[in-house]
Amino acid sequence: MGAERKKIIIDTDPGIDDAMAIFVALNSPEIEVIGLTTIYGNVYTTLATRNALHLLEVAERDDIPVAEGSHVTITKGTKLRIADFVHGSDGLGNQNFSPPKGKAIDQSAVAFLVEKVSQFPGEVTVVALGPLTNIALAIELDPEFPKKIGQIVLLGGSFFVNGNVNPAAEANIFGDPEAADIVFTCGADVLAVGLNVTHQVILTETDREKLAQSNGKFAQYLCKILGIYFSYHHEAYETRGVYLHDPAAFLAAVDPSLFTYTEGMVRVQTNGITRGMTILDNTKKRYGEITEWSDKPIVKVAVTVDAPAVVKMVMERLMNS
Amino acid sequence: MGAERKKIIIDTDPGIDDAMAIFVALNSPEIEVIGLTTIYGNVYTTLATRNALHLLEVAERDDIPVAEGSHVTITKGTKLRIADFVHGSDGLGNQNFSPPKGKAIDQSAVAFLVEKVSQFPGEVTVVALGPLTNIALAIELDPEFPKKIGQIVLLGGSFFVNGNVNPAAEANIFGDPEAADIVFTCGADVLAVGLNVTHQVILTETDREKLAQSNGKFAQYLCKILGIYFSYHHEAYETRGVYLHDPAAFLAAVDPSLFTYTEGMVRVQTNGITRGMTILDNTKKRYGEITEWSDKPIVKVAVTVDAPAVVKMVMERLMNS
Repeated sequence: MGAERKKIIIDTDPGIDDAMAIFVALNSPEIEVIGLTTIYGNVYTTLATRNALHLLEVAERDDIPVAEGSHVTITKGTKLRIADFVHGSDGLGNQNFSPPKGKAIDQSAVAFLVEKVSQFPGEVTVVALGPLTNIALAIELDPEFPKKIGQIVLLGGSFFVNGNVNPAAEANIFGDPEAADIVFTCGADVLAVGLNVTHQVILTETDREKLAQSNGKFAQYLCKILGIYFSYHHEAYETRGVYLHDPAAFLAAVDPSLFTYTEGMVRVQTNGITRGMTILDNTKKRYGEITEWSDKPIVKVAVTVDAPAVVKMVMERLMNS
Repeated sequence: MGAERKKIIIDTDPGIDDAMAIFVALNSPEIEVIGLTTIYGNVYTTLATRNALHLLEVAERDDIPVAEGSHVTITKGTKLRIADFVHGSDGLGNQNFSPPKGKAIDQSAVAFLVEKVSQFPGEVTVVALGPLTNIALAIELDPEFPKKIGQIVLLGGSFFVNGNVNPAAEANIFGDPEAADIVFTCGADVLAVGLNVTHQVILTETDREKLAQSNGKFAQYLCKILGIYFSYHHEAYETRGVYLHDPAAFLAAVDPSLFTYTEGMVRVQTNGITRGMTILDNTKKRYGEITEWSDKPIVKVAVTVDAPAVVKMVMERLMNS
C-alpha cells in the first residue's frame, strides 16, 4: 500500500488558467481531487459552476462533486469585479461550449468545505484560486475550520511588488479583501502564492505550439481557449507568453519544493486607494508600538519559484492525457 | 569663476541623523545651505527650531537663517508621533546642551520656502528630512511652487519593503500622509530616498571609533550624542550599527550618481492599517481600469545605493572640520 494521496478541494472561478490548473490536478497522481467549489472572479459564480461542471465532463471526471459558492462578497453590497476581459465573457475563451449535463450538488460550497475538513481532519488541502469568500465563510461557520484543515494554498496577493488590478492590489484579494484578511489571520496553515512568483511562471508561444502538436485531450482543449488569454497578456504586459498563476499555485500544494518561502504575518488593507493590498511583515524589527500585525498568526509566503520546473510539470501533465 | 553652487534648504526635525546631515551639508563645497526650516518628527517643532539653531552655533554658522515650520499636520487634529525613543527627549541624545543664543527668523518656514524659490526659480533644492507638512503647505500657498523649485529630495517612504513605524509605513510619511501625497503628486522634480536604500547605509561601531579619534569638531560633537541612537538600533534591529537615513538623503541631492533610480507614480495611503504607506507604480502594465495612480506626475525613487561611498563621504565631511 502506498501513502495516502493528499485530498484536495479546488476553490475556483474558471477561468482559463483555472481550467489549466484543474486539468493538471486531474493528471496529478500525488493527489486526489475530492471536489470543486466555485466562486465569482474571472466570471460570476453561476457561470463558474457551469464551467467547473463542463471542465470535469471534458475530463470525463464527472464523478467529482461541484459545490456552488457565494455569489457575493463577505460584507455583501460590494460591486463584484469580473475579469471577463482576461478570460472572455464565458470565462473560457468565448468558445460557445455546450452546457454541461451535470449539476452542482445540493450542498453549498461552504457546507461542503466544512463537512470535508470535519470528515478528514488534517488531511484536506484547499487550493483557492479565486477571491477567498467561501473559505472565510467556512471559518465563520465553523471556528474549528482552521484547525481541521490541512493547508490552505491560495493564489493571491502581490508581496513587495505591484498588483495587477492596480498598483496596490492583486485581483483575487481585491475581489474580497475582508474575506482575505479573515483567511490570513485565521491561524490555519496558510501558504500564499502571489504575483511576485507567478509573474515568473510563463507559458510561451513555443509551449503553446507544443500543446497544439500534442495528442493530449487537455492540451487540445486548452489550445482552443488560450487565444484571448494570450491577447490579453500581449496588450497588458507586452509579453508573448501568459502567466500560469493558477497551475503554479496548485503545484505549490503538490510539490512545495518547487518554491521557497518566507514566514510572517499578512494583513489585507480593506479601504482607501490600497484596498486589497497584502502587507507581509517579515522584518525582524521590534516595532516601538503595537501594530496591526502584532500577535497575528504566522503564514507562509512564496518568494522564489523554480519556474522552468513548474512549466515543465504543467506541460507534461497537460499533454499526458 | 566656478559654477554656481546649488542652493539648498534643509527641512529638518533634529534629530541625531539630522544633525549629521546638517554637519555634512555645512562641509559640502558643492552646495550652499541657504536656510533651515523646521518640522516636528523626531521632536516637536519648537524643539526642532531650538536644535537647528544650536547645531548652527556649534558649527559657527549662525549666519544661516532658521525658519520655524508647522506645529501640526496639514489636516490638523492628527496626533503627532514623536520619535523621542530614537533620539532622546531633547532630540540630541539627552546631553543637556545650553539653549542657543540665536532665534528663528520672523518668517514662517512656508513663507521662507515660497520666497526663496520665487527669488531663485529653478535653483533651490529642498532636502526634506522630516514629515512633509511645510512643503505641502508651500504648494498650497503658491500653486507655482512645484514649477519654481529646482528639486525636492525627500527622505521618506519604504518602497517594496516594510516600514519602520509599522510593517506598512515609514516614519516621515506616517508623520503626515496627506502632506506626503500632496508632495508626491504636485508635479515638481521629486526624488524620494526610502528605507529600501537607507537601510543599506550603515555607520558601524568601527566608524564611530574613527569619529571619536578624529579631531574634527563635528565628529567630536556627534560622538557625544550617538549613544542613544546606537542603543535604539541594537534593540530594534539587533544591529551594532546605525542607519544614516538623513545624511544619505542629503548626499542624493549633492551627488545623484551615488544612487540609481526608478521612475513612476507614487501615492500615499491616508487611512486604515496601511496609513502612511507609499505605493510606487513602476510596472509597465496597462491596467484595465483607471487607477488612483493614472495620470499622476512621475517622480524618481532611489532603488540602489553605493553604500560604502556614501559612508565614506559622510565620514570625511564629519572629520574634516
